[in-house]
Amino acid sequence: MHIGFLGLGNMGAPMARNLLKAGHALTVFDLSATAVSGLVEAGATAAASPAALAKTDVALIITMLPAAAHVKGVYLGEDGLLANVQPGVLLIDSSTIDPMSAREVAKAAVARGNPMLDAPVSGGTGGAAAGTLTFMVGGEAADFDHAQPILAAMGKNIVHCGGAGNGQVAKVANNMLLGISMIGVAEAMALGVALGMDASVLAGVINTSSGRCWSSDSYNPFPEVMDNVPAARGYSGGFGTDLMLKDLGLATEAAKQARQPVLLGATAQQLYQSFSQQGHGGLDFSAIIKLYRQEG
Amino acid sequence: MHIGFLGLGNMGAPMARNLLKAGHALTVFDLSATAVSGLVEAGATAAASPAALAKTDVALIITMLPAAAHVKGVYLGEDGLLANVQPGVLLIDSSTIDPMSAREVAKAAVARGNPMLDAPVSGGTGGAAAGTLTFMVGGEAADFDHAQPILAAMGKNIVHCGGAGNGQVAKVANNMLLGISMIGVAEAMALGVALGMDASVLAGVINTSSGRCWSSDSYNPFPEVMDNVPAARGYSGGFGTDLMLKDLGLATEAAKQARQPVLLGATAQQLYQSFSQQGHGGLDFSAIIKLYRQEG
Amino acid sequence: MHIGFLGLGNMGAPMARNLLKAGHALTVFDLSATAVSGLVEAGATAAASPAALAKTDVALIITMLPAAAHVKGVYLGEDGLLANVQPGVLLIDSSTIDPMSAREVAKAAVARGNPMLDAPVSGGTGGAAAGTLTFMVGGEAADFDHAQPILAAMGKNIVHCGGAGNGQVAKVANNMLLGISMIGVAEAMALGVALGMDASVLAGVINTSSGRCWSSDSYNPFPEVMDNVPAARGYSGGFGTDLMLKDLGLATEAAKQARQPVLLGATAQQLYQSFSQQGHGGLDFSAIIKLYRQEG
Amino acid sequence: MHIGFLGLGNMGAPMARNLLKAGHALTVFDLSATAVSGLVEAGATAAASPAALAKTDVALIITMLPAAAHVKGVYLGEDGLLANVQPGVLLIDSSTIDPMSAREVAKAAVARGNPMLDAPVSGGTGGAAAGTLTFMVGGEAADFDHAQPILAAMGKNIVHCGGAGNGQVAKVANNMLLGISMIGVAEAMALGVALGMDASVLAGVINTSSGRCWSSDSYNPFPEVMDNVPAARGYSGGFGTDLMLKDLGLATEAAKQARQPVLLGATAQQLYQSFSQQGHGGLDFSAIIKLYRQEG
Repeated sequence: MHIGFLGLGNMGAPMARNLLKAGHALTVFDLSATAVSGLVEAGATAAASPAALAKTDVALIITMLPAAAHVKGVYLGEDGLLANVQPGVLLIDSSTIDPMSAREVAKAAVARGNPMLDAPVSGGTGGAAAGTLTFMVGGEAADFDHAQPILAAMGKNIVHCGGAGNGQVAKVANNMLLGISMIGVAEAMALGVALGMDASVLAGVINTSSGRCWSSDSYNPFPEVMDNVPAARGYSGGFGTDLMLKDLGLATEAAKQARQPVLLGATAQQLYQSFSQQGHGGLDFSAIIKLYRQEG
Repeated sequence: MHIGFLGLGNMGAPMARNLLKAGHALTVFDLSATAVSGLVEAGATAAASPAALAKTDVALIITMLPAAAHVKGVYLGEDGLLANVQPGVLLIDSSTIDPMSAREVAKAAVARGNPMLDAPVSGGTGGAAAGTLTFMVGGEAADFDHAQPILAAMGKNIVHCGGAGNGQVAKVANNMLLGISMIGVAEAMALGVALGMDASVLAGVINTSSGRCWSSDSYNPFPEVMDNVPAARGYSGGFGTDLMLKDLGLATEAAKQARQPVLLGATAQQLYQSFSQQGHGGLDFSAIIKLYRQEG
Repeated sequence: MHIGFLGLGNMGAPMARNLLKAGHALTVFDLSATAVSGLVEAGATAAASPAALAKTDVALIITMLPAAAHVKGVYLGEDGLLANVQPGVLLIDSSTIDPMSAREVAKAAVARGNPMLDAPVSGGTGGAAAGTLTFMVGGEAADFDHAQPILAAMGKNIVHCGGAGNGQVAKVANNMLLGISMIGVAEAMALGVALGMDASVLAGVINTSSGRCWSSDSYNPFPEVMDNVPAARGYSGGFGTDLMLKDLGLATEAAKQARQPVLLGATAQQLYQSFSQQGHGGLDFSAIIKLYRQEG
Repeated sequence: MHIGFLGLGNMGAPMARNLLKAGHALTVFDLSATAVSGLVEAGATAAASPAALAKTDVALIITMLPAAAHVKGVYLGEDGLLANVQPGVLLIDSSTIDPMSAREVAKAAVARGNPMLDAPVSGGTGGAAAGTLTFMVGGEAADFDHAQPILAAMGKNIVHCGGAGNGQVAKVANNMLLGISMIGVAEAMALGVALGMDASVLAGVINTSSGRCWSSDSYNPFPEVMDNVPAARGYSGGFGTDLMLKDLGLATEAAKQARQPVLLGATAQQLYQSFSQQGHGGLDFSAIIKLYRQEG
């Protein structure tokens, strides 16, 4: 299939490469010439602008952009996708943005005659490279069925979350819970160790009890409890504190619009903000445990 | 083996019955004559006081009491266990109390020549009746090995957590994390549904993603997401809000003594306190989701 | 002086009336014909649109609008003020909006040759009617001096807060502190009374001690401690919970943009959100004490 | 009058000196011989023990001790005050302890035939030396009247707060509010300055608006806003972070016993705990603003 791909950053570039590997023809665009040439060397064709890309005979366009403002610009701008794309082309936005913006863009797309899915991912740059991302997808079931085999070239877990915007809802809800759980694990581990327990023994108890969670059993923040997690390598790599902060910002903003309280979610946001202000925004988010330990 | 058992409440009585079923001889004490007569009918012998119980030829004594004040009274009082028990008798306190009190009593026991273990449980009255409790045990390894087969008659997961008091540390750390996670799940589920997602679909996404935790995949607080959990039956049964509140009180008190911050733990404690003040202290702790939903 | 006034709502209408009373000529605009006719009866002239108003020979224009989106629309839109006003006309926006939006509009105004001030108010509808508002003003000192006598017809405390946007900064900072203080007073009063103190005696102690604050000595939330405050009349009138919620939303949004943590500010926002969700958004914000009292 | 005084620490010693200056005869006790000899040089008589002091012909005894455990020991111990004092001697405890402990001791005193007042102070070591303390007094009105002229030798503001324990209630409620307000001011000042305002201008706006509070207008935490406050001298002197932490510990403990939620109070406690863990427990509590500023 001929696919258009806009946004070749840390996530978009390896995703696009996996589409090429799966045998798809790709036309790509990015503001960075370096990013574009990397994909061209791998077999993609370059487009000069979003409008130019939209005017090719692509059957499907995927976008992977940093924030809602970019998504609105690329889709709704005068020289944007909707003003130039053929009716019927399926549009998939994999950016992580707020659900309201996702629904606004999807509504405009449908009004133009283009089905649209929001399909944010989890799994990080590692998952993007390995093709093991999770896609949380919002939109019509028929469009989901259409997109599923394409997305499967980039991820291994493709979940239909309901109507337009619900992919974003699932992502912000999950990641808000993740941000809370990680701080909860950090507090519990730091408290238990301060009270005299061995960290690995405590993690073992928690992981077989009711405190069990992904942040504890698969990504424990305490140093030397697990191998192959950021805590084992000085909190490098992984999912950066400032990215978690962005997602918690989306969650609390969506909560504000829905007039829904999120007390722990908002407190978690402030704690990551405080940690980032201390200069640690580039560390993996599990480094938040440093807020709770003197040697931190 | 001849075992002494003090404290025949909602937890202690079924635990004692399981010891009888396993073939042990039991001498029991409780302030409630009704509680005592229930066990006597099942084959136990009644003692007139803790001191009287201590003076029998029991090889091991288990206590299951409501709070630290009771534990200190029963062990350290003038007519208490330590003043009357034979040296060498193994003492096991299964009450949930603060680690510092547990260590204070254990130190006094050892000074008197009695090995002691703290062995708080999780699993609730259901687990006590079924003999499937988890025991988190603090004390010497040799004493743990000695106690293990006895505890196995009452539970299925017997974990050695390190030295004296560490059973209590493991319990407060785990339960603090549990209290935080449950509110995190409540906020995430309520937010996602307010933003338009189906609750079961959202739970499905979370349970296969990084927000996964026991409160979500085994005890989901949202009505109609799971069967056989308190949320499916109006939040009756289960682990009461006021019991969670007690455990969070122990956790924040232990944190205060250790000069360790627990920001989300303390906030969680206040939220359960607020919910209890509204008259819901008797509901299962997963009912905390009512704080986040208008119909609550 | 000939003054233009846009936005004749609960605040704008009495403010405009005070300008008329002070002898100024007024040309007004509002989407509500009723609002306009009220002012016309009082002596103002109606304009058919913001553009029409801008094209008159007004020497100064004041706007009083609900939110940033309206302000951006009225100033920056194709048929808006900046596209139609004479260069040199002083623009004053008294809406409460986020500082970044205020600075964006001011920058556009200055680029068009129009000096601009942001001048949000405090004092509520009562202060608007009585002409006793406080104006927190951001912009150039010379423009402030120019505006000062005009604003003095509507308020009694006109404070220059520094450059463009700083009026909004002062307002969000002050109101965030107010929102926190009020909850602090609510918690302290409810705690003291629960512990057995008389509410008025406790308020008396606090008001002469280090806990003293406006929320305690001038606006005490506990029933029957003060006369002439919302707590004395069932929390009617005053400054609504949903308005406080709006201001806390601006504060936390501004903090997010400035990458500045506001832990208590964010927690306060969530508590007012929770109270509003329970159906109390229309009550004065001091009614938040109901979250802390069983009879609430 | 012949007065007994126990507890000659940083607060007790200058208070005792002021009683001597006012012409009273003093018999004193402290575990520190140095502390005792300092008072003896100033004219006091030393007692060898609390029991010995109680057996003199003192008409009134004042105690100033670090925590509830000491107060209970000194009053209720076998060699303590109640076991040895003449009936009718008025007992005044100026220690800051939890209200429940204060009531327990007062009840025991009254049962022995001794009227008792709890009379914690505010004003710090400076106020103790200058004789300008505030006394918050709980107990019978007649006993308060009796004590008032004595206390007036050590303080300038003597407030009757109601029955036994209410002096402690007033103190914990006021200081909890103080701890919250100070963080509120810190957040508001740090936010406003991060958004571009001058700190002194912002403080000026707040101090004449609804955010006004003692922490802002009399003890502003931002450097260079006020003279003669800890913020002007590197946060030395004043009221230490660890003392605020102690008082917040009493407040949240009292709230727990009263089953009363204190969300901001508990969050404030955790923030001071976090700041103390970072090594700043000896700084004045207004230094908490360092948690909010990068250069902090």
